[in-house]
Amino acid sequence: MLVRQGGRGRSLYDEIKSSVLDGTYLAGTALPSSRACAAERGLSRSTVSSVYEQLAAEGFVEMRQGAGTRVAAGAAVAGAARPKGAKGARRPRVDPALSSIGRRLESLALPVRSASAPEVVDFVYGPLAGRDFPTLAWTKAARQVERQRAPVLAYEDPQGNEELRAALRVHLAHARGVFCDTSQLLVVNGSQQALDLCARLLVEPGDTVAVENPGYRMAHHVFECAGATLRGVAVDPQGLVPADLAHVPDARLIYVTPTHQFPMGGLMTIRRRNALLEWAAEKGAWIVEDDYDSEYRHAARPEAALQALDDRGLVIYVGTFSKTLSPQLRLGYMVLPHRLVAAFATAKRVADRHAPSAPQRTLARLLKSGAYDRHVRRLRRSQKARREALLAALGHYLQGQVSVHGASSGLHLVVAFDDLPSALEEELARLALLEGVQAYPLGRFYLPAPSASAAGRPAALVLGYASLEPERMDPGVQRIARALHRLRDRRTKGA
Amino acid sequence: MLVRQGGRGRSLYDEIKSSVLDGTYLAGTALPSSRACAAERGLSRSTVSSVYEQLAAEGFVEMRQGAGTRVAAGAAVAGAARPKGAKGARRPRVDPALSSIGRRLESLALPVRSASAPEVVDFVYGPLAGRDFPTLAWTKAARQVERQRAPVLAYEDPQGNEELRAALRVHLAHARGVFCDTSQLLVVNGSQQALDLCARLLVEPGDTVAVENPGYRMAHHVFECAGATLRGVAVDPQGLVPADLAHVPDARLIYVTPTHQFPMGGLMTIRRRNALLEWAAEKGAWIVEDDYDSEYRHAARPEAALQALDDRGLVIYVGTFSKTLSPQLRLGYMVLPHRLVAAFATAKRVADRHAPSAPQRTLARLLKSGAYDRHVRRLRRSQKARREALLAALGHYLQGQVSVHGASSGLHLVVAFDDLPSALEEELARLALLEGVQAYPLGRFYLPAPSASAAGRPAALVLGYASLEPERMDPGVQRIARALHRLRDRRTKGA
Repeated sequence: MLVRQGGRGRSLYDEIKSSVLDGTYLAGTALPSSRACAAERGLSRSTVSSVYEQLAAEGFVEMRQGAGTRVAAGAAVAGAARPKGAKGARRPRVDPALSSIGRRLESLALPVRSASAPEVVDFVYGPLAGRDFPTLAWTKAARQVERQRAPVLAYEDPQGNEELRAALRVHLAHARGVFCDTSQLLVVNGSQQALDLCARLLVEPGDTVAVENPGYRMAHHVFECAGATLRGVAVDPQGLVPADLAHVPDARLIYVTPTHQFPMGGLMTIRRRNALLEWAAEKGAWIVEDDYDSEYRHAARPEAALQALDDRGLVIYVGTFSKTLSPQLRLGYMVLPHRLVAAFATAKRVADRHAPSAPQRTLARLLKSGAYDRHVRRLRRSQKARREALLAALGHYLQGQVSVHGASSGLHLVVAFDDLPSALEEELARLALLEGVQAYPLGRFYLPAPSASAAGRPAALVLGYASLEPERMDPGVQRIARALHRLRDRRTKGA
Repeated sequence: MLVRQGGRGRSLYDEIKSSVLDGTYLAGTALPSSRACAAERGLSRSTVSSVYEQLAAEGFVEMRQGAGTRVAAGAAVAGAARPKGAKGARRPRVDPALSSIGRRLESLALPVRSASAPEVVDFVYGPLAGRDFPTLAWTKAARQVERQRAPVLAYEDPQGNEELRAALRVHLAHARGVFCDTSQLLVVNGSQQALDLCARLLVEPGDTVAVENPGYRMAHHVFECAGATLRGVAVDPQGLVPADLAHVPDARLIYVTPTHQFPMGGLMTIRRRNALLEWAAEKGAWIVEDDYDSEYRHAARPEAALQALDDRGLVIYVGTFSKTLSPQLRLGYMVLPHRLVAAFATAKRVADRHAPSAPQRTLARLLKSGAYDRHVRRLRRSQKARREALLAALGHYLQGQVSVHGASSGLHLVVAFDDLPSALEEELARLALLEGVQAYPLGRFYLPAPSASAAGRPAALVLGYASLEPERMDPGVQRIARALHRLRDRRTKGA
């Protein structure tokens, strides 16, 4: 390095450069000879020469044999010499527009969640408890991976680490009845990226995409941003209602959660699954199956995935480790029909090369050693304890006033307030927050358009319990009951 | 769980289910009573009841008081009973098409790199040496991060970990003259994701995107997949030639590597930088500055980034840790103009929520503790040793026959064979591989269309050296010299 950070020539370099940039030294201005400058500054001649050479290399000055060193033409910032401090000021400027995807993203008003105060009981869905993470097993495996660093750190297979995919294949066959080759597996940064890749590769702007309504809004948003027109399909306690697909004549793709409808908790019967597959085959529609929390069937053996029934290559299966390890890991996977593999692998490569290597290898070790299965069994027990505490509290404080949906599975449930119209659920949530409990109105899970299926339903709250300690369920529900009381009280007085 | 994996009821469950699915048991078929079935199978009645209940829950059978248990209508797979093993066979099927992005991705023939045999000297650009990774410092910081696991594992800020962004802000000001707020920073999965987000948010299908030619092909591909028409802009030893922008009247975006043109190695002078900024302001074009390896200015102090000259918010700055830590980490970042922050943060959230948390926190610790700077200084020395060994070998075996470009910076250089036409460079690379050395013809870095700037140039090879031990440079270059000799020999005989 000729001119070093903090070296003696540095201030000379900075001074000349900024004088050129702000127009103080005009083009053609001769700099003093290196001898003269060195004498004036008390620097060595070689230091000054280094500075001049550096400035010449960067085009601020020109050095010519016999002609000395002069400020180069065109080196000043346009509009110089402008007043100091003008940099932050906005001048009238051209504004290159966003793309249509960019404009859709910009107009998407996603809720920004900030962490609740510790005294608030937050029935948020999504987070897990830090103490449920298998720290010991993960750290042990991670150290083994660190010790085996390859001699060359190269970009890896865009579909994901080979060892992880082999372990996933075995896991999926055993746990989900999903039989696939490792070549069909694509490791992604959480299920969100799986959905995003589906939207980009399978949906054209203007296409219709069918979604469960109510449903998983972050999936809805992905397809909206791709320019799709969303059509909601009704759900009931057996999940998606295939008869309602008659209103969606031309969908390019349907997004479903067949094993545990989000958020209502329904489990699609085999009859409905077959009807859905038939519909998709007839319409030429892709089915994206989001199997986000099948590890948590509390009451029954997990039924096989919808993908296991598909012999036409219409189902794209999406899984995640966000519900068993941590949403902060950003690890998920897809099982792709063979004919989609090439396009998706290229898309992943162009999007971000591949998922980070070390976490993939660590996870492969956990799966292969059986530590992952042991962890999931442990975690199921601790989630069961939470769920039972929540159900007990609901029985205690709200018996006879609510119906509970989707409690047989997963990490959340829906509490419907039978005598309260849905129009009051936001108010109920607001009052609940004042009491110190955060719960999530069901209306927020519906598509925005006024929907027939939402009208006339009772008020309902979605309660996630995976990140709460069991002993907090009781005060949480008590506060909801208090809010309900206040709401009824107010209405009675108002009436 | 009623029916457990491997439990005694499992084979009964599987048998009934598959018989229903393949049509062996038709709809309405009565199953034996649980008592009869239990006796026949040697199972307990409660096991059989559990199996029936599970099958009912999944819709395979219906249980009615007094009517016993019957196979449900619509539960068989359509087309059943089909012959066993037909699942793999292809039937005529609808084929829901890929989107236009999907079709572009599918037709993109990206080179698939497999690792070279150990005896081959592979001058590949991209990988780093495993022994250069700061394993001790990284592992120490990673353990501290593990120990501080939060009580709740929630989705994080899509823009990235706050601590990492604060550390990055300081690092960028010091090392790159880039001054920004942490609110302008977006942590991404490597620079590839940064480019992908730019393509999605800033480029409309049909738009023109200007790129350096030759240039970084993975950037070209991102914009191609977004539907852009690419226009190549010439480069010379001072990087991008602004005069050549006259041929690109209407670009929406330009992708540049101003501090170290990839692959030719030019450094854009200040005059050219200003000309580029003026052009972009006038045309209303975004500038994407990929500052991928500025840590490796061997001969001079790193000059400030182009972003530092931009006072109109036209430059999107992209940085990466792939060249100083590992490409397998998948960690990079963007500095965004204020008016793009909201759209990009939402895009990141919709694309994959956020970058994985633990690696972000680990990196923040390395940056804050000074361990990262120490590592980069060490790494610079080891890359310098490689580069000097490579230059020495080139001097020894190819003196007078080649010109070397871009050796003053970065992790690769370009060797031009002055008397060999470019049409022969693929043949040279092929012969070199037979000699046991992999080198990369410069032609592969050009846009596919026959380009004026490519015509008439001499044959050239791109040599990356970051993953090779210094002692392998000599045999590597010797083998290239041998291949050159064979090529000339063959031509003389042919002539």
